[in-house]
Amino acid sequence: MTDAPSSQVSRRRLLGVGAGAVVAGAVAGVGGAYAATHVAADPATEAETAGGPADDAVPFRGEHQAGIVTPAQDRMHFVALDVVTEDRAALAAMLKAWTRAAERMAAGAEAAPGGVVGGGPYRAPEDTGEAYDLDASDLTITIGYGPSLFDDRFGLADRRPAALTDLPGFVGDELDPARSNGDLCIQACANDPQVAVHAVRNLVRMGFGVVAVRWSQLGFGRTSSTTRAQVTPRNLFGFKDGTNNLKAEDVDALSEHVWVQPEDVPGASAWMAGGSYLVARRIRMHIEIWDRTPLQEQQDLIGRDKGEGAPLGQQAEFDPLDFAAKGADGRPAIPVDAHVALAHESRLNGIRILRRGYNFTDGSDGVGHLDAGLFFIGFMRDARRQFVPMQRSLAARDGLNEYIEHTGSAVFACPPGLGPDEYWGQALFS
Amino acid sequence: MTDAPSSQVSRRRLLGVGAGAVVAGAVAGVGGAYAATHVAADPATEAETAGGPADDAVPFRGEHQAGIVTPAQDRMHFVALDVVTEDRAALAAMLKAWTRAAERMAAGAEAAPGGVVGGGPYRAPEDTGEAYDLDASDLTITIGYGPSLFDDRFGLADRRPAALTDLPGFVGDELDPARSNGDLCIQACANDPQVAVHAVRNLVRMGFGVVAVRWSQLGFGRTSSTTRAQVTPRNLFGFKDGTNNLKAEDVDALSEHVWVQPEDVPGASAWMAGGSYLVARRIRMHIEIWDRTPLQEQQDLIGRDKGEGAPLGQQAEFDPLDFAAKGADGRPAIPVDAHVALAHESRLNGIRILRRGYNFTDGSDGVGHLDAGLFFIGFMRDARRQFVPMQRSLAARDGLNEYIEHTGSAVFACPPGLGPDEYWGQALFS
Repeated sequence: MTDAPSSQVSRRRLLGVGAGAVVAGAVAGVGGAYAATHVAADPATEAETAGGPADDAVPFRGEHQAGIVTPAQDRMHFVALDVVTEDRAALAAMLKAWTRAAERMAAGAEAAPGGVVGGGPYRAPEDTGEAYDLDASDLTITIGYGPSLFDDRFGLADRRPAALTDLPGFVGDELDPARSNGDLCIQACANDPQVAVHAVRNLVRMGFGVVAVRWSQLGFGRTSSTTRAQVTPRNLFGFKDGTNNLKAEDVDALSEHVWVQPEDVPGASAWMAGGSYLVARRIRMHIEIWDRTPLQEQQDLIGRDKGEGAPLGQQAEFDPLDFAAKGADGRPAIPVDAHVALAHESRLNGIRILRRGYNFTDGSDGVGHLDAGLFFIGFMRDARRQFVPMQRSLAARDGLNEYIEHTGSAVFACPPGLGPDEYWGQALFS
Repeated sequence: MTDAPSSQVSRRRLLGVGAGAVVAGAVAGVGGAYAATHVAADPATEAETAGGPADDAVPFRGEHQAGIVTPAQDRMHFVALDVVTEDRAALAAMLKAWTRAAERMAAGAEAAPGGVVGGGPYRAPEDTGEAYDLDASDLTITIGYGPSLFDDRFGLADRRPAALTDLPGFVGDELDPARSNGDLCIQACANDPQVAVHAVRNLVRMGFGVVAVRWSQLGFGRTSSTTRAQVTPRNLFGFKDGTNNLKAEDVDALSEHVWVQPEDVPGASAWMAGGSYLVARRIRMHIEIWDRTPLQEQQDLIGRDKGEGAPLGQQAEFDPLDFAAKGADGRPAIPVDAHVALAHESRLNGIRILRRGYNFTDGSDGVGHLDAGLFFIGFMRDARRQFVPMQRSLAARDGLNEYIEHTGSAVFACPPGLGPDEYWGQALFS
């Protein structure tokens, strides 16, 4: 996988075809030349042509879906979709087509063999083109199924895992239905936002008549590390976020807290073994108020110092949290209701989740402020036992609630990774 | 300027101070230690400490503002603001403070000397912190004054350049007042979106009580090159955009088409000499419809081929447009109403502009589609003589109008660059 001749292999180069010659033919009206000269049949063929996928390509297939423990890329485009047909076969066919397109795009290729110009002058291109000159950019495409997919429409009611259920309401929720829920989701992450947007757009395009966009969220800065090699990033409160996150290296902990185990999904829901539940929460941050809060109050609310990210009372970011440590005034260095305390496993019966969220700024709120915040994404084995008690604790007692507002919410079942010839939905619809 | 020890000099390192020690002091309640240990007085001091600004820093001062002919960075955060005070002195003071902060941030430093943690525990930090670990990232901060700034509120009516006037309406405009106009604008461009958002946010924060956000736009992919060294990027129609753009190297053409000349701004408006007018248009693209349009029709609408970006009838991207060339069918290779023809200088009495726009995706439109498009930014010497006739021609005849909708519009006068000790507004308010 690392034999690519360059780390900067664009879609165009991966095709192994001089686009200029092809296009000149098109301009002269020689449409028939397309199919013969524009190869790029599938990722395997392309790999052969170009010497392997780009080395900024993340493997698409595997035990688990990419985009969960994959080192968190810098940018994200997330979309929730509603299925607009009641035709079960059409839905299954779309998921199969998505698989093929997603695998191609993750390898740095165009969405379909015809690509941008290979389908001839009289057809709409099979790829929309805005990523034609761009690298694979570590693109991952992760799909999930919402609870509503398992209603009566598609005969899937008995396939619903017991854990896949709408989240309960929480104190302080200000959820916008237009930013919540959905039958399906696509999480596209990449180090180039144009590559992530391109991936979502092309899948949506292929799903025309089967799905429609319900809501969509662009994230510009990751807010968690998912491997130990990554530097901890900062959220829009200006604090390091995700220091104590689960990491890809924590294999046993991932089995315990992130990956759905066979015993969790008996019988007709066994298709979900090896998958993970994705909880999305759009958290608007009232940054203007936060920005007028004294440093010490900010730090007491979070429980870490702002510069280094060390737990209060400690020196370095990765020092363990010591809830017994006292400050100079004799009180706990980390206030008992600090965010890191309320969310800590020691206070939640050992609960942990894998966070993989992004910062966002969506224009202004119409009353003089930026509409900015954190698009929380958490992966977990059972949201009922992990996110729900954690959020109940935070909703009830977290002082940060003065500065934030949950404006969107959704939960999706992300199925396991795909075997060599498998496609999305195959296990679910079989 | 290029003597920095590394191309990856973060704000934190630029400060030349181990933040950990400072913060540990804060936790123990020794707030007084801050001012003494946390230096970073101004960019000059920092340069001395760290061996010079980061070499991914763009010079802030000069004949013209940075962010116009500066090689177009990959990401943008644009904000339009309304002045909410009638206190002329407060407005002038804010612009002066903005100058200092913008110069610091462009050099890769925090927004103010106190920075993230240097102000002590009992004050709100002077920098919001989310860019603390990030490089200068080629940040440029460009400001502009809207026509409305020159009404009766601030005694500036006689300082308004004649060319700074609201744009007329155009056929097909669907402008949203909540995405249009403004007293001031800030264009922040950087290769890391978090750095651009951080810059805007900190300037807005410093302007609390003086300005409020009117609208804001995030752009994720540049749509034009502004130097010959840059690869031409693609817009969300999948076409290369900006091939024939004015470039930084075209010094004479920039004087003719982009920079306001002394003779343009006689008398009380002389402060604008060396500046440029910025026209912003939020152009929603109906990408779902476009994506169902055959390749040849797309190419005929644009006037270039989709793969290479060559003018129709030519072979290579930078081949000159030949409106006399005929296709195999005997008709013009470039249709007479193709976008590139309507916008070409030969059809517009030699008019040219410098484009510097960005792709955007702002969630969904609520009816199943992505709210995506192009945030057009053009710089020019006189919008009345350049953008207005160009857009009149396009609005009347461009076949692309079936696929696009102008949903926001604004014009701003971007003053010239700043001399060594000069600050924004100094010439305007003097």
